[in-house]
Amino acid sequence: MEGAATFDIMLPESDGQPVYQRLYEQIRDRIRSGEIADGARLPSVRALQDQLNTSKTPIETAYQMLIAEGYVVSRPRSGLYVSNPYPAPTPEMTGVPRTPESTVGISPAHTLHASSGKQAVIDFDPARLDAEAFPLRIWSKMLREAFEAHANEIGNYGDPMGEYGLRAELADYLRSSRGVRCTPEQIAVGTGMAHSIDLLTHLLKDVRLVAMEEPGYHLVRNQLQLNGRDIVPIPLGDKGLALDVLEESRAQAVYVTPSHQFPTGFILPYPERKRLLEWADRNGAYVIEDDYDGEFRYVGKPIPSLQGLDEQGRVVYIGTFSKAFTPALRMNYMVLPMELAEQLARMPHEAACPPARAEQWAMQRFMAEGHWYRHIRKIRGIYRKKHAHLIGLIHERLGPRVEITGQNAGLHLQLTLQESRSSDELIGLAAQAGVRVYDLRKMWMDEERRLSDEPRLYLGFAGLKLKDMEKGIRLLEQAWFNPPLPV
Amino acid sequence: MEGAATFDIMLPESDGQPVYQRLYEQIRDRIRSGEIADGARLPSVRALQDQLNTSKTPIETAYQMLIAEGYVVSRPRSGLYVSNPYPAPTPEMTGVPRTPESTVGISPAHTLHASSGKQAVIDFDPARLDAEAFPLRIWSKMLREAFEAHANEIGNYGDPMGEYGLRAELADYLRSSRGVRCTPEQIAVGTGMAHSIDLLTHLLKDVRLVAMEEPGYHLVRNQLQLNGRDIVPIPLGDKGLALDVLEESRAQAVYVTPSHQFPTGFILPYPERKRLLEWADRNGAYVIEDDYDGEFRYVGKPIPSLQGLDEQGRVVYIGTFSKAFTPALRMNYMVLPMELAEQLARMPHEAACPPARAEQWAMQRFMAEGHWYRHIRKIRGIYRKKHAHLIGLIHERLGPRVEITGQNAGLHLQLTLQESRSSDELIGLAAQAGVRVYDLRKMWMDEERRLSDEPRLYLGFAGLKLKDMEKGIRLLEQAWFNPPLPV
Repeated sequence: MEGAATFDIMLPESDGQPVYQRLYEQIRDRIRSGEIADGARLPSVRALQDQLNTSKTPIETAYQMLIAEGYVVSRPRSGLYVSNPYPAPTPEMTGVPRTPESTVGISPAHTLHASSGKQAVIDFDPARLDAEAFPLRIWSKMLREAFEAHANEIGNYGDPMGEYGLRAELADYLRSSRGVRCTPEQIAVGTGMAHSIDLLTHLLKDVRLVAMEEPGYHLVRNQLQLNGRDIVPIPLGDKGLALDVLEESRAQAVYVTPSHQFPTGFILPYPERKRLLEWADRNGAYVIEDDYDGEFRYVGKPIPSLQGLDEQGRVVYIGTFSKAFTPALRMNYMVLPMELAEQLARMPHEAACPPARAEQWAMQRFMAEGHWYRHIRKIRGIYRKKHAHLIGLIHERLGPRVEITGQNAGLHLQLTLQESRSSDELIGLAAQAGVRVYDLRKMWMDEERRLSDEPRLYLGFAGLKLKDMEKGIRLLEQAWFNPPLPV
Repeated sequence: MEGAATFDIMLPESDGQPVYQRLYEQIRDRIRSGEIADGARLPSVRALQDQLNTSKTPIETAYQMLIAEGYVVSRPRSGLYVSNPYPAPTPEMTGVPRTPESTVGISPAHTLHASSGKQAVIDFDPARLDAEAFPLRIWSKMLREAFEAHANEIGNYGDPMGEYGLRAELADYLRSSRGVRCTPEQIAVGTGMAHSIDLLTHLLKDVRLVAMEEPGYHLVRNQLQLNGRDIVPIPLGDKGLALDVLEESRAQAVYVTPSHQFPTGFILPYPERKRLLEWADRNGAYVIEDDYDGEFRYVGKPIPSLQGLDEQGRVVYIGTFSKAFTPALRMNYMVLPMELAEQLARMPHEAACPPARAEQWAMQRFMAEGHWYRHIRKIRGIYRKKHAHLIGLIHERLGPRVEITGQNAGLHLQLTLQESRSSDELIGLAAQAGVRVYDLRKMWMDEERRLSDEPRLYLGFAGLKLKDMEKGIRLLEQAWFNPPLPV
C-alpha cells in the first residue's frame, strides 16, 4: 500500500522558533535526507494534533509551507504525500542504468516524477530572478540605516505619491539611463502593475477603449477589463504595431512595450515610435509605455524610452523594481504627464497606495550612495551571460527545429517550433520530463488566432543557474525529439 | 526687509551621506538652533547651485524635505522662507511678558506664527501615531532575520494574497483578539484601504449601489465612487444605522465601522449587529466591516467583530496595521467570505498587489515570537492614558461649552460646540493659534446636512505628547473663548 509506511513526527525542542517553523524544518530536512521517503503519506492534521498535543494552526501552517515549497502534494480526498523535489540522482543524470522501480515510468525522464507527475524540477519561469545576485547584505544595511535616520517619522503616513527623496533619485536615474524627462513631482511610486492600472483608470475616467499589442501582456489586459475598460487588439506587423489598425480603432489609449515587446521580444524602431506619438497627439490619446525590462539590452546601445521623445505630455511611463532588483519588493513607479500628476496630487490622500516607507527610504539611500548603478552593472553582466548561454544551448541541442525570436534584450526568449504537435502536447512532454516552459497562447486576445497559432513557447532564464539550464535544454531535447527508450 | 538677511549655506564634507542629506541636515540643524532665523529667505536653487557647484536635484530634494517637515514654507512667486516649528518659548508658555516684535500679531498666540500663519505647531492629526512607541529595535531585528531566513526566495514573487505564514498568524490573532472566525485561506494581505476597495469592487462586479454610514468615512466613499459605484447615505440614529432606510435603499452592500463609528465614535450594540446581518442575509447583500481601531477600547470588554457573528458568509472584514503598528508600513488585510476568497485565488496572479515580502516575513516572525501581543498591550496602555488625559483637559479647559462624544474607544475624540460660530471660523481661530483640529463636515455626503450641522470637530491624540496636548487645549481655550488681549 502506497504511503502506508508510518514514521513519527516529533516536535523538536524549543529553540526560540515558533512551533510551525520547527515542525516545517524537521519534516523538510527529513524529506531532503531521504529519511521520509518519496511517496510517503503524512499524518492527518487531527492525528498529529493529538499526538503532539498542540493546536491545529501550527500543523496546518507547516504543511502549507511544505506544499508551497513543493515537498508535499495534496491529493483530494486522500491526503498529503511526500514528493521530494531533490530526489537521488536518476539514470539520465548520472549515466548509470537503474532498475525501474515503478510501473508508471516509460521514459527514464518520466521516473523523475513518478510520485507527483506535476512537479517541475527545472522551471524556465519568466518572473523569477537570480536570488544570489541580490545584494542582501547592503540592502539589509540600507534598511537598518533608513529606519534609524527616519525614526521620528515612523508614526506618520508618507506622501501618497511616494517619498520625495526616492522620487528625486528615480528622476535622475531615469533621465540618465532611460532618457526619461521628468521632475520628481511627476513620479508616483506604487506596488505593482495591477495597482498602476487601477490608479490610471481612476485618473483617466473618460478613456473607455484601450488598444493592446496582439499578442500582448495578458495580465494588463485582464486588469483593464476588471476596471470595466474595453480592449481592442492591434496586430504586430514587421514594423511593430499596425498603426493603420490603431488609427481606425478609435482607441483613447494604447498599452505598449516598445523596449522589448512582451512576449515576442521585438524592439520598436525609432520611426515607428515617432508615428505612435503623432497618433497620440492627433487624437488626444495616451500611450502607456511599460518599460518592464528596459535595463537589459545585450547588443548595441540601449534605446531610450518613448517618454523621452514625447513633447506633448501623452506618455505614461511605467517602470518596475521587479526585474532589475527583486519581485519580492513589490515596488514600481509611474511617470505621469504633468497634467495627470497634478490631478493625482489633488486626489484624496488615500487614493494612492505607495509601498512601505522604510523600503522607499532604503531604496533612496541605495540609489544615492551609488549602489543601484553598481547593482545594475553587475546583474546586466550576469544576465548577458545567461542569455548567451541559453541561446547557445538551444542552437546546439534543439537545432534547426526551433527558431528563437526576440533575442538581444530582456530576461526571456521566445521559441517557435515548426511542427504538427500542439503547444499543449509539447508543454505536457516537457512537464513529464520535469521541465516547465510557458505557453505564448494566453497572450493572444483573438481566440481564433490563439488556437491556430503554430506552437510558440517562452522561456525565462534569469532565475536559473547555468548548469540547470543545460540540464533543462537536454531534457527538452529528449522529451520533444528523441523517441522514448524501449521498455 | 523681511528675509533680506543673508547667510551662507555650505556643503558639509562627505561623511558617506548623499549631498541632499548633508544639505538638509545642515539647514535643519541651523534652523533648530536659531542660527538661521525664523522668517529668513533661503537662497534660490539656481543661486545655491552656482555657489556649491553641484547639480539641481540634491538642492531641490533638500528643500523639499525641509518643506515636508515644516521647517520651510513656500510663498508663490516669492521664494522659500524659514518657519521654525520649534521656536523659542513665547510669553504664554513661560509666563514672561514679551514685547510684540511684529505688527501682525494681535493675540500673543498669534505671534507664534507671524512668519507663516498656516503652520500648525500642535496637530491633533487623527492619522498620526506615537513614533516613540514603535518597537524600532525589535522590528529592525525581525526584518534582518526574515531576510536571512528567506534569502533563497528573494528572486520570486510571493503569494498574491500574501505570505501564507503571515496569514496563519493573522487568523490566530483575529480569532483570539477580535472574535473573527476564518482560515488563513480567507485572508488577503494588502497595502491599504484604497487597494482593498479597488480589489473588492473587482470581486463584486454586480454590486453597483453601496450604502454608507452618514456621516461616514469620506475616503472610502471617494474610493467607491472612483470605481464607478453609486453611494446611498444611511443616517445614524440612536441605535446606529437606520435599518429601515437601509432596507428601502436597495443597496447591495453596506460599509460600516461598528467597533468605533468613524467619525462619531458610536459603538454598534449587539441587537443592531444581529439585525444588520439578517438584512444582509435576506437580501444576499454584503457587509463591509472596517475594524480600523478595534484594538482600542478603554472601558469594558472589547466587543467582538461583526464577522464573528456572521453564519452566512456575508461579511468582509477589513483590518489594518496603520493604527496598531505604524501607518509607514502601509499594510492591511481583508478577511473574505470563503466564496470571495476562492474567486480571488482564481484571479490572475497580478490582480492582487500584496506588500513587500520582507515586511510580511518580518511581521509573521514578530507575531510568532509573541512581540505583537506585547506591543498591543503596551500601546493600549499608552493610548488609554492619552485618551483619559485629553478628556480631562477638555473638561477642565473647554468646560461645558464643548460636548465630547465617541469616547471610550479608538484614537480620536469628537467635539460638538453649542454656539453660533461656524466650524470654519473655529478651525481658523485654532490655526492662528498654532493648533490644527479637524472638520467633521467632510464626512457628510448630504450637502444640506453638511452645511447646517452644528460645529463638530474631531481630534486625534495618538501622535501627541501629553505636554503638547496640554498646550494645545490651552491654546484652543484662548483662541475660542477668551477675548483677544487689548493691543
